Amino acid sequence: MPSDFHPNAEDLAASNAAFVRDFDGSGLQAAPTRRLAVVACMDARLDTLRILGLRAGEAHVIRNAGGVITDDVIRSLCLSQLLLGTREVVLVHHTGCGLQQLDEDRFMARLAAETGVRPPWPLEAFADPHDDIVESIRRLRATPFLPHKDHISGFVYDVADGKLHGVEPPTA
Amino acid sequence: MPSDFHPNAEDLAASNAAFVRDFDGSGLQAAPTRRLAVVACMDARLDTLRILGLRAGEAHVIRNAGGVITDDVIRSLCLSQLLLGTREVVLVHHTGCGLQQLDEDRFMARLAAETGVRPPWPLEAFADPHDDIVESIRRLRATPFLPHKDHISGFVYDVADGKLHGVEPPTA
Repeated sequence: MPSDFHPNAEDLAASNAAFVRDFDGSGLQAAPTRRLAVVACMDARLDTLRILGLRAGEAHVIRNAGGVITDDVIRSLCLSQLLLGTREVVLVHHTGCGLQQLDEDRFMARLAAETGVRPPWPLEAFADPHDDIVESIRRLRATPFLPHKDHISGFVYDVADGKLHGVEPPTA
Repeated sequence: MPSDFHPNAEDLAASNAAFVRDFDGSGLQAAPTRRLAVVACMDARLDTLRILGLRAGEAHVIRNAGGVITDDVIRSLCLSQLLLGTREVVLVHHTGCGLQQLDEDRFMARLAAETGVRPPWPLEAFADPHDDIVESIRRLRATPFLPHKDHISGFVYDVADGKLHGVEPPTA
Protein backbone atom coordinates (compact mmCIF):
# COMPACT_ATOMS: atom_id res chain seq x y z
CA MET A 1 0.00 0.00 0.00
CA PRO A 2 1.41 3.44 -0.85
CA SER A 3 2.32 5.52 2.20
CA ASP A 4 0.28 8.47 0.93
CA PHE A 5 -3.04 6.63 1.24
CA HIS A 6 -5.41 7.92 3.91
CA PRO A 7 -8.62 5.96 4.56
CA ASN A 8 -11.78 8.00 3.96
CA ALA A 9 -14.38 6.46 6.28
CA GLU A 10 -13.98 8.98 9.14
CA ASP A 11 -14.09 11.93 6.74
CA LEU A 12 -17.25 10.56 5.13
CA ALA A 13 -18.96 10.19 8.52
CA ALA A 14 -17.99 13.79 9.35
CA SER A 15 -19.29 15.03 5.97
CA ASN A 16 -22.56 13.24 6.63
CA ALA A 17 -23.23 15.59 9.59
CA ALA A 18 -23.61 18.51 7.17
CA PHE A 19 -25.89 16.42 4.95
CA VAL A 20 -28.08 15.61 7.98
CA ARG A 21 -28.40 19.30 8.92
CA ASP A 22 -29.85 20.11 5.47
CA PHE A 23 -31.78 16.83 5.10
CA ASP A 24 -35.16 17.23 3.38
CA GLY A 25 -35.85 13.62 2.35
CA SER A 26 -37.92 12.45 5.32
CA GLY A 27 -41.07 12.20 3.18
CA LEU A 28 -39.53 9.96 0.50
CA GLN A 29 -40.93 6.46 -0.06
CA ALA A 30 -39.16 3.26 -1.12
CA ALA A 31 -41.13 2.94 -4.39
CA PRO A 32 -39.42 5.14 -7.03
CA THR A 33 -41.86 7.91 -8.01
CA ARG A 34 -40.82 7.86 -11.68
CA ARG A 35 -41.17 4.06 -11.75
CA LEU A 36 -37.70 3.94 -13.22
CA ALA A 37 -34.58 1.84 -12.69
CA VAL A 38 -31.23 3.11 -14.00
CA VAL A 39 -28.35 0.69 -14.68
CA ALA A 40 -25.02 2.53 -14.93
CA CYS A 41 -21.29 1.94 -14.76
CA MET A 42 -19.55 2.37 -11.38
CA ASP A 43 -17.13 4.87 -13.00
CA ALA A 44 -16.12 7.64 -10.57
CA ARG A 45 -16.91 10.38 -13.11
CA LEU A 46 -20.63 9.47 -13.32
CA ASP A 47 -22.84 11.38 -10.87
CA THR A 48 -25.76 9.31 -12.08
CA LEU A 49 -28.65 11.37 -10.72
CA ARG A 50 -27.21 14.74 -11.83
CA ILE A 51 -26.40 13.51 -15.34
CA LEU A 52 -30.03 12.50 -15.86
CA GLY A 53 -31.65 15.37 -13.95
CA LEU A 54 -33.05 12.99 -11.32
CA ARG A 55 -33.68 13.63 -7.63
CA ALA A 56 -33.63 11.29 -4.64
CA GLY A 57 -36.79 9.22 -4.47
CA GLU A 58 -37.36 9.06 -8.22
CA ALA A 59 -35.41 6.02 -9.44
CA HIS A 60 -33.53 2.91 -8.41
CA VAL A 61 -29.86 3.14 -9.33
CA ILE A 62 -27.96 -0.08 -10.03
CA ARG A 63 -24.25 0.18 -10.81
CA ASN A 64 -21.40 -2.24 -11.50
CA ALA A 65 -18.19 -2.36 -13.52
CA GLY A 66 -19.32 -1.49 -17.04
CA GLY A 67 -23.02 -1.07 -16.28
CA VAL A 68 -23.44 -4.49 -17.91
CA ILE A 69 -26.42 -6.81 -17.42
CA THR A 70 -25.34 -9.64 -15.12
CA ASP A 71 -27.39 -12.05 -13.01
CA ASP A 72 -27.03 -9.67 -10.08
CA VAL A 73 -28.49 -6.82 -12.13
CA ILE A 74 -31.37 -9.09 -13.20
CA ARG A 75 -31.94 -9.94 -9.51
CA SER A 76 -32.00 -6.24 -8.64
CA LEU A 77 -34.31 -5.31 -11.53
CA CYS A 78 -36.61 -8.22 -10.73
CA LEU A 79 -37.05 -6.90 -7.17
CA SER A 80 -37.34 -3.34 -8.51
CA GLN A 81 -40.21 -4.29 -10.81
CA LEU A 82 -42.09 -6.90 -8.75
CA LEU A 83 -41.62 -5.47 -5.29
CA LEU A 84 -41.38 -1.73 -5.88
CA GLY A 85 -43.32 -1.09 -9.08
CA THR A 86 -40.79 0.16 -11.63
CA ARG A 87 -41.73 -0.15 -15.31
CA GLU A 88 -38.75 1.25 -17.20
CA VAL A 89 -35.03 0.54 -17.50
CA VAL A 90 -32.48 3.12 -18.64
CA LEU A 91 -28.91 1.94 -19.29
CA VAL A 92 -25.90 4.26 -19.05
CA HIS A 93 -22.49 3.25 -20.38
CA HIS A 94 -19.75 5.80 -21.05
CA THR A 95 -16.70 6.65 -23.14
CA GLY A 96 -13.25 5.76 -21.81
CA CYS A 97 -14.45 2.81 -19.71
CA GLY A 98 -11.78 0.65 -18.04
CA LEU A 99 -13.51 -2.47 -19.36
CA GLN A 100 -13.21 -1.12 -22.88
CA GLN A 101 -9.41 -1.30 -23.03
CA LEU A 102 -9.16 -4.53 -21.06
CA ASP A 103 -7.59 -7.73 -22.36
CA GLU A 104 -9.89 -10.21 -20.59
CA ASP A 105 -7.65 -13.25 -21.11
CA ARG A 106 -4.55 -11.51 -19.76
CA PHE A 107 -6.36 -10.09 -16.73
CA MET A 108 -7.90 -13.49 -15.94
CA ALA A 109 -4.49 -15.15 -16.20
CA ARG A 110 -3.04 -12.51 -13.84
CA LEU A 111 -5.84 -13.11 -11.32
CA ALA A 112 -5.42 -16.87 -11.51
CA ALA A 113 -1.65 -16.53 -11.03
CA GLU A 114 -1.97 -14.12 -8.07
CA THR A 115 -4.77 -15.91 -6.23
CA GLY A 116 -4.33 -19.54 -7.29
CA VAL A 117 -7.95 -19.62 -8.42
CA ARG A 118 -9.58 -18.70 -11.70
CA PRO A 119 -12.62 -16.47 -11.04
CA PRO A 120 -15.99 -18.20 -11.64
CA TRP A 121 -17.28 -15.06 -13.41
CA PRO A 122 -16.38 -13.36 -16.70
CA LEU A 123 -14.96 -9.83 -16.50
CA GLU A 124 -17.52 -8.57 -19.03
CA ALA A 125 -14.97 -6.58 -21.04
CA PHE A 126 -16.26 -5.01 -24.25
CA ALA A 127 -14.86 -3.24 -27.30
CA ASP A 128 -17.45 -0.49 -27.84
CA PRO A 129 -19.93 1.06 -25.36
CA HIS A 130 -22.65 1.49 -28.00
CA ASP A 131 -22.42 -2.18 -28.99
CA ASP A 132 -22.43 -3.22 -25.36
CA ILE A 133 -25.63 -1.24 -24.72
CA VAL A 134 -27.20 -3.24 -27.55
CA GLU A 135 -25.94 -6.48 -25.99
CA SER A 136 -27.30 -5.38 -22.60
CA ILE A 137 -30.75 -4.69 -24.10
CA ARG A 138 -30.71 -8.15 -25.67
CA ARG A 139 -29.92 -9.71 -22.31
CA LEU A 140 -32.79 -7.83 -20.65
CA ARG A 141 -35.18 -8.99 -23.37
CA ALA A 142 -33.99 -12.58 -23.00
CA THR A 143 -34.42 -13.01 -19.26
CA PRO A 144 -37.65 -14.63 -18.04
CA PHE A 145 -37.44 -12.79 -14.70
CA LEU A 146 -38.54 -9.30 -15.75
CA PRO A 147 -42.24 -8.75 -16.43
CA HIS A 148 -41.84 -5.21 -17.85
CA LYS A 149 -39.72 -4.86 -20.97
CA ASP A 150 -41.66 -2.35 -23.09
CA HIS A 151 -39.55 0.61 -22.00
CA ILE A 152 -35.83 -0.13 -22.20
CA SER A 153 -33.43 2.47 -23.52
CA GLY A 154 -29.71 3.13 -23.46
CA PHE A 155 -27.30 6.04 -23.50
CA VAL A 156 -23.56 6.45 -23.82
CA TYR A 157 -22.27 9.25 -21.55
CA ASP A 158 -19.35 11.24 -22.94
CA VAL A 159 -16.94 11.87 -20.05
CA ALA A 160 -15.35 14.76 -21.99
CA ASP A 161 -18.45 16.97 -22.16
CA GLY A 162 -21.15 15.35 -20.01
CA LYS A 163 -23.41 14.65 -22.96
CA LEU A 164 -25.67 11.58 -23.24
CA HIS A 165 -25.89 9.94 -26.64
CA GLY A 166 -28.94 7.76 -27.26
CA VAL A 167 -28.31 4.27 -28.62
CA GLU A 168 -30.66 2.78 -31.18
CA PRO A 169 -32.08 -0.42 -29.64
CA PRO A 170 -31.78 -3.66 -31.60
CA THR A 171 -34.81 -4.34 -33.80
CA ALA A 172 -35.02 -7.96 -32.64
CA MET B 1 -49.18 -1.61 -17.28
CA PRO B 2 -51.10 1.20 -15.57
CA SER B 3 -52.38 3.86 -17.97
CA ASP B 4 -50.82 6.65 -15.90
CA PHE B 5 -47.27 5.52 -16.61
CA HIS B 6 -45.18 7.83 -18.80
CA PRO B 7 -41.74 6.65 -19.87
CA ASN B 8 -38.90 8.92 -18.69
CA ALA B 9 -36.13 8.46 -21.28
CA GLU B 10 -36.96 11.54 -23.38
CA ASP B 11 -37.25 13.74 -20.29
CA LEU B 12 -33.90 12.50 -19.03
CA ALA B 13 -32.23 13.29 -22.35
CA ALA B 14 -33.75 16.79 -22.23
CA SER B 15 -32.58 17.30 -18.62
CA ASN B 16 -29.09 16.28 -19.66
CA ALA B 17 -28.85 19.37 -21.90
CA ALA B 18 -28.86 21.60 -18.78
CA PHE B 19 -26.25 19.37 -17.15
CA VAL B 20 -24.02 19.71 -20.23
CA ARG B 21 -24.28 23.54 -20.15
CA ASP B 22 -22.92 23.61 -16.58
CA PHE B 23 -20.50 20.70 -17.05
CA ASP B 24 -17.19 21.13 -15.22
CA GLY B 25 -15.94 17.54 -15.17
CA SER B 26 -13.78 17.51 -18.28
CA GLY B 27 -10.58 17.19 -16.22
CA LEU B 28 -11.70 14.12 -14.25
CA GLN B 29 -9.78 10.87 -14.59
CA ALA B 30 -11.02 7.26 -14.47
CA ALA B 31 -8.95 6.41 -11.35
CA PRO B 32 -10.92 7.54 -8.25
CA THR B 33 -8.91 10.30 -6.54
CA ARG B 34 -9.87 9.12 -3.04
CA ARG B 35 -8.90 5.52 -3.94
CA LEU B 36 -12.30 4.50 -2.62
CA ALA B 37 -15.09 2.17 -3.78
CA VAL B 38 -18.55 2.53 -2.23
CA VAL B 39 -21.01 -0.40 -2.28
CA ALA B 40 -24.59 0.77 -1.61
CA CYS B 41 -28.19 -0.32 -2.02
CA MET B 42 -30.04 0.71 -5.20
CA ASP B 43 -32.77 2.31 -3.02
CA ALA B 44 -34.25 5.42 -4.65
CA ARG B 45 -33.82 7.50 -1.47
CA LEU B 46 -30.02 7.14 -1.45
CA ASP B 47 -28.18 9.94 -3.25
CA THR B 48 -24.94 8.11 -2.57
CA LEU B 49 -22.43 10.86 -3.29
CA ARG B 50 -24.34 13.57 -1.34
CA ILE B 51 -24.89 11.34 1.70
CA LEU B 52 -21.13 10.79 1.99
CA GLY B 53 -20.02 14.27 0.93
CA LEU B 54 -18.33 12.92 -2.18
CA ARG B 55 -17.87 14.59 -5.56
CA ALA B 56 -17.66 13.14 -9.07
CA GLY B 57 -14.20 11.69 -9.72
CA GLU B 58 -13.52 10.66 -6.13
CA ALA B 59 -14.98 7.14 -5.79
CA HIS B 60 -16.37 4.15 -7.64
CA VAL B 61 -20.02 3.57 -6.76
CA ILE B 62 -21.38 0.02 -6.98
CA ARG B 63 -25.07 -0.50 -6.23
CA ASN B 64 -27.51 -3.42 -6.25
CA ALA B 65 -30.62 -4.56 -4.41
CA GLY B 66 -29.56 -4.48 -0.76
CA GLY B 67 -26.00 -3.32 -1.30
CA VAL B 68 -25.02 -6.94 -0.62
CA ILE B 69 -21.73 -8.56 -1.64
CA THR B 70 -22.40 -10.82 -4.63
CA ASP B 71 -20.04 -12.25 -7.25
CA ASP B 72 -20.85 -9.26 -9.47
CA VAL B 73 -19.78 -6.86 -6.70
CA ILE B 74 -16.57 -8.87 -6.22
CA ARG B 75 -15.96 -8.63 -9.99
CA SER B 76 -16.48 -4.86 -9.85
CA LEU B 77 -14.29 -4.38 -6.75
CA CYS B 78 -11.59 -6.60 -8.25
CA LEU B 79 -11.43 -4.33 -11.33
CA SER B 80 -11.65 -1.25 -9.09
CA GLN B 81 -8.61 -2.32 -7.07
CA LEU B 82 -6.42 -3.99 -9.69
CA LEU B 83 -7.17 -1.78 -12.68
CA LEU B 84 -7.97 1.59 -11.12
CA GLY B 85 -6.07 1.65 -7.84
CA THR B 86 -8.72 1.80 -5.09
CA ARG B 87 -7.64 0.67 -1.62
CA GLU B 88 -10.76 1.07 0.53
CA VAL B 89 -14.33 -0.26 0.54
CA VAL B 90 -17.22 1.50 2.27
CA LEU B 91 -20.56 -0.35 2.52
CA VAL B 92 -23.90 1.48 2.82
CA HIS B 93 -27.09 -0.36 3.78
CA HIS B 94 -30.17 1.49 5.04
CA THR B 95 -33.26 1.29 7.22
CA GLY B 96 -36.55 0.26 5.62
CA CYS B 97 -34.98 -1.83 2.85
CA GLY B 98 -37.32 -3.86 0.63
CA LEU B 99 -35.11 -6.91 1.11
CA GLN B 100 -35.52 -6.60 4.87
CA GLN B 101 -39.24 -7.42 4.91
CA LEU B 102 -39.05 -9.99 2.14
CA ASP B 103 -40.11 -13.62 2.52
CA GLU B 104 -37.50 -15.15 0.20
CA ASP B 105 -39.22 -18.55 -0.15
CA ARG B 106 -42.59 -17.03 -1.06
CA PHE B 107 -41.09 -14.59 -3.55
CA MET B 108 -39.05 -17.38 -5.17
CA ALA B 109 -42.17 -19.55 -5.44
CA ARG B 110 -44.03 -16.64 -7.07
CA LEU B 111 -41.24 -16.11 -9.59
CA ALA B 112 -41.06 -19.82 -10.40
CA ALA B 113 -44.85 -19.95 -10.87
CA GLU B 114 -44.97 -16.83 -13.07
CA THR B 115 -41.96 -17.62 -15.25
CA GLY B 116 -41.82 -21.41 -15.21
CA VAL B 117 -38.21 -21.24 -14.06
CA ARG B 118 -36.67 -20.97 -10.61
CA PRO B 119 -34.02 -18.20 -10.61
CA PRO B 120 -30.43 -19.50 -10.42
CA TRP B 121 -29.58 -16.75 -7.87
CA PRO B 122 -30.67 -16.14 -4.26
CA LEU B 123 -32.62 -12.94 -3.56
CA GLU B 124 -30.23 -12.03 -0.73
CA ALA B 125 -33.01 -11.06 1.69
CA PHE B 126 -31.91 -10.20 5.22
CA ALA B 127 -33.48 -9.51 8.60
CA ASP B 128 -31.35 -6.65 9.88
CA PRO B 129 -29.18 -4.14 7.96
CA HIS B 130 -26.50 -4.02 10.68
CA ASP B 131 -26.15 -7.81 10.67
CA ASP B 132 -26.05 -7.83 6.87
CA ILE B 133 -23.20 -5.30 6.87
CA VAL B 134 -21.29 -7.71 9.11
CA GLU B 135 -22.07 -10.58 6.72
CA SER B 136 -20.95 -8.42 3.77
CA ILE B 137 -17.65 -7.63 5.47
CA ARG B 138 -17.12 -11.36 6.08
CA ARG B 139 -17.72 -12.07 2.39
CA LEU B 140 -15.21 -9.42 1.36
CA ARG B 141 -12.61 -10.86 3.73
CA ALA B 142 -13.26 -14.37 2.40
CA THR B 143 -12.83 -13.73 -1.32
CA PRO B 144 -9.42 -14.45 -2.86
CA PHE B 145 -9.99 -11.86 -5.61
CA LEU B 146 -9.41 -8.64 -3.65
CA PRO B 147 -5.81 -7.74 -2.79
CA HIS B 148 -6.73 -4.80 -0.49
CA LYS B 149 -8.81 -5.60 2.58
CA ASP B 150 -7.23 -3.46 5.31
CA HIS B 151 -9.79 -0.68 5.01
CA ILE B 152 -13.35 -2.00 4.92
CA SER B 153 -16.08 -0.23 6.86
CA GLY B 154 -19.86 -0.19 6.87
CA PHE B 155 -22.69 2.22 7.63
CA VAL B 156 -26.45 1.96 7.97
CA TYR B 157 -28.18 5.02 6.48
CA ASP B 158 -31.35 6.11 8.28
CA VAL B 159 -33.88 7.10 5.60
CA ALA B 160 -35.86 9.10 8.20
CA ASP B 161 -33.14 11.65 9.01
CA GLY B 162 -30.27 11.06 6.57
CA LYS B 163 -27.84 9.97 9.27
CA LEU B 164 -25.14 7.33 8.79
CA HIS B 165 -24.61 4.90 11.66
CA GLY B 166 -21.24 3.13 11.74
CA VAL B 167 -21.32 -0.66 12.11
CA GLU B 168 -18.71 -2.38 14.25
CA PRO B 169 -16.84 -4.82 11.95
CA PRO B 170 -16.61 -8.46 13.00
CA THR B 171 -13.48 -9.20 15.01
CA ALA B 172 -12.73 -12.30 12.94
